[in-house]
Amino acid sequence: MTKTNSGNFFEDFTLNQTLIHATPRTITAGDVALYNALYGARFALQSSDEVAKVHGFKQSPIDDLLTFHVVFGKSVPDISLNAVANLGYAEVLFEREVYTGDTLSATSIVIGLKENSNRKTGVVYVKTTGINQRGEVILSFIRWVMVNKRDETATIIELVPTFKKSLAADDLKIKLQGNVNKALSGSPYITLDYTVGEKIDHADGVTVEEAEHMLATRLYQNTAKVHFNAHAQSTSRFGKRLIYGGHVISHARALSFNGLGNGWRLAGINAGRHINPLFAGDTIYAWSEILEVTPHALRVKTIATKNQDCKTYPDANHENAILELDYWVSFAG
Amino acid sequence: MTKTNSGNFFEDFTLNQTLIHATPRTITAGDVALYNALYGARFALQSSDEVAKVHGFKQSPIDDLLTFHVVFGKSVPDISLNAVANLGYAEVLFEREVYTGDTLSATSIVIGLKENSNRKTGVVYVKTTGINQRGEVILSFIRWVMVNKRDETATIIELVPTFKKSLAADDLKIKLQGNVNKALSGSPYITLDYTVGEKIDHADGVTVEEAEHMLATRLYQNTAKVHFNAHAQSTSRFGKRLIYGGHVISHARALSFNGLGNGWRLAGINAGRHINPLFAGDTIYAWSEILEVTPHALRVKTIATKNQDCKTYPDANHENAILELDYWVSFAG
Amino acid sequence: MTKTNSGNFFEDFTLNQTLIHATPRTITAGDVALYNALYGARFALQSSDEVAKVHGFKQSPIDDLLTFHVVFGKSVPDISLNAVANLGYAEVLFEREVYTGDTLSATSIVIGLKENSNRKTGVVYVKTTGINQRGEVILSFIRWVMVNKRDETATIIELVPTFKKSLAADDLKIKLQGNVNKALSGSPYITLDYTVGEKIDHADGVTVEEAEHMLATRLYQNTAKVHFNAHAQSTSRFGKRLIYGGHVISHARALSFNGLGNGWRLAGINAGRHINPLFAGDTIYAWSEILEVTPHALRVKTIATKNQDCKTYPDANHENAILELDYWVSFAG
Repeated sequence: MTKTNSGNFFEDFTLNQTLIHATPRTITAGDVALYNALYGARFALQSSDEVAKVHGFKQSPIDDLLTFHVVFGKSVPDISLNAVANLGYAEVLFEREVYTGDTLSATSIVIGLKENSNRKTGVVYVKTTGINQRGEVILSFIRWVMVNKRDETATIIELVPTFKKSLAADDLKIKLQGNVNKALSGSPYITLDYTVGEKIDHADGVTVEEAEHMLATRLYQNTAKVHFNAHAQSTSRFGKRLIYGGHVISHARALSFNGLGNGWRLAGINAGRHINPLFAGDTIYAWSEILEVTPHALRVKTIATKNQDCKTYPDANHENAILELDYWVSFAG
Repeated sequence: MTKTNSGNFFEDFTLNQTLIHATPRTITAGDVALYNALYGARFALQSSDEVAKVHGFKQSPIDDLLTFHVVFGKSVPDISLNAVANLGYAEVLFEREVYTGDTLSATSIVIGLKENSNRKTGVVYVKTTGINQRGEVILSFIRWVMVNKRDETATIIELVPTFKKSLAADDLKIKLQGNVNKALSGSPYITLDYTVGEKIDHADGVTVEEAEHMLATRLYQNTAKVHFNAHAQSTSRFGKRLIYGGHVISHARALSFNGLGNGWRLAGINAGRHINPLFAGDTIYAWSEILEVTPHALRVKTIATKNQDCKTYPDANHENAILELDYWVSFAG
Repeated sequence: MTKTNSGNFFEDFTLNQTLIHATPRTITAGDVALYNALYGARFALQSSDEVAKVHGFKQSPIDDLLTFHVVFGKSVPDISLNAVANLGYAEVLFEREVYTGDTLSATSIVIGLKENSNRKTGVVYVKTTGINQRGEVILSFIRWVMVNKRDETATIIELVPTFKKSLAADDLKIKLQGNVNKALSGSPYITLDYTVGEKIDHADGVTVEEAEHMLATRLYQNTAKVHFNAHAQSTSRFGKRLIYGGHVISHARALSFNGLGNGWRLAGINAGRHINPLFAGDTIYAWSEILEVTPHALRVKTIATKNQDCKTYPDANHENAILELDYWVSFAG
């Protein structure tokens, strides 16, 4: 009996099973600095304790995506260590801010299982909840991943869950207070300055390096093997390390400062899809379309591309599209 | 009307214009750790809270160049997003220390404008001031950059400012107190051990990687495009990403520990010039010449080179010279 | 007389000489975050302040290897700047935990000297002790390095010291308290679940990048030239930068979570040996054999390899073996 943990395979999951994920994680100012150095975000709320206080926070809260990645990372050893692919996210709801010193932990419930027709893999649907050291819910989300079976002949009780195509504005828990200082925030626009259908090119491109995405993914304690092992990946389909999809999301979000500079917090993610893989040496660009405008939040669709600028707003079908993300972003007033 | 910010062009500046730069930035222990990991500085004042207390500080102050880069970075989106080149620095005066928890913000005044004869570009001179959350001045500096014009036919009121060739010892605001413990500081020399004209080879060489300079430049929230986008740079003059000049300054300063180990704080920079560009894969070396000796500070000229050691003290005209920096460094007594 | 420090050569050392190493170092949350991002450790004690409190700590202590690397790094400018090779470690005894805010400093005593028969090099044996700001001993260790002579004809008084092949369980100072929460720790095994002779493949592989090992080695303020200077190394035996051996130890330790997840603290290192050099682009794997089982600690031998997985437990004689480490690891009960 080996003590090496080889992770769960498709037939190891059962409907309504609860998984308590390992390794609670205290978030520190060091994590925040690394996150900033990796993505270069410039949103004033997360950059300045002084700005944060003006808007009713005790200090700058953690970037919501750092929270997401840490909670997501906790679920990897139990859910997706043997994943073939991360297929999607839905109903990602941010409920509460995280400060340095808070400790995050996570649990998941298996809400769906569907074997693929080749009987070699199946799709596992989980709802994951991240809590802080006081047991308060920080965020929850649904994701589904394709996982290898250990034994092709194994059978399993199946259920495909239903979930919302999009969170409604009324579902959101995050609402920013106070009036933004537009000179200090770097953007003159509040929600009502945007119109549905408006397109924004985020202009800049950023090239990704092996060292960067591995530092990021380890910071999140995400152990998915395909990101770290060039030796094993040399015989894989792509022949090289794959970059964690969340790394792309964080870069796209940081790029979106140019055009969405007062959109300080993520309130929810309605749908996320990694269209093509990203590799070290590729350059990420992004653009956004405004889907809904409310007084406190915009619903935005961001498309990220690789090695292709976004001046012509390439859509999710473009051969260089890598990410389509439909989300709610809360604005300071 | 797009919401994408494409930065200021030469004709967007006017004499005596004040620019309030965006995104105040709270400095943390995380920023300091990253700075240390990027450059490997070993000056005892910044390394040890215990040493700092002996010399009258409440804890280790932030490295003065980290302060400089953060304040400089704030000015980039307004001043040099469309810069062709950073031409120089002058009258960089450090006035006050920064501790973790302090929040830096910055403003600039346009003090000079001069169109180039080709009418495609012009030189913008600004005086930038960085303050903390109490409004106290931390540092100020003059810099000038060559910026593209949007419209060749645009005309502008011109003025070339004058400034000091060098700060005098009496201009300096930083003076260190207390006697240095030479065993713990790693250097036996105080100011009066140096002589004018003395040359010091800083001996070590350090190779720079793409991931490192991008982490650094993002840590400073410096958004200059040429540092990040390999895809766009592939069609540029150099065909690749350029390394932020400040990254070279920080490496040269860290190397200077070997020979100037008790020169704990920058008091001022008289003149700075980036002679040649640096690219990932290049190795930085540096040497220094002592220009002036005073009881509390040395005026030093440091030359950095690439892929060329400094045993023979190559000057600024050497084909591999990359930096010439004339500055005042304050010593513990 | 140059002010450039060129380090000590073999004949500069004398028996029983005490060296006070420079640059005390205050450890911060930033250092910890970088360490985590570099290696991806997931041991619950170091990851969560809440877990640490349950086991009697005021907060998460620093990873013991971060402490080791910082103390080791302090000794480099005095001991091994002119080292040809790090030959070994022995009697590494961890005595006390380090928290963020603590300041580490180090001294070494020369306990042995042995010239090599070629008269060009000699072996220096030192016992190095790291203390905190209250003067309490944090750890001590013996190491020996081959150092160049400045002058082949120089003679020196020789002594080869003796030391323990292994620390005994009774020698150890670190003992963890309290019962581990196995769901949160990520491992179901405590010491008595292991058996002598048991082998554990740590399964994962991690590829190392130039940027990463240089960030790490600078974080430890370790200045050994061979790690940083590609320009100078291009004419060396290997033609490229060598990776600090401690970087390999930290990676092997992080990989060992898979199989030794409740082995939260290093109590001692009996023997360490770098078998082959590691270079950027190589992938590290590791496996462990249980050498001794006691109620509170396991004695473990870990072998790390490069570009060779450890499914077949390759031993120290394997051509791709890079590290053999014999150590005591303390478990939560």
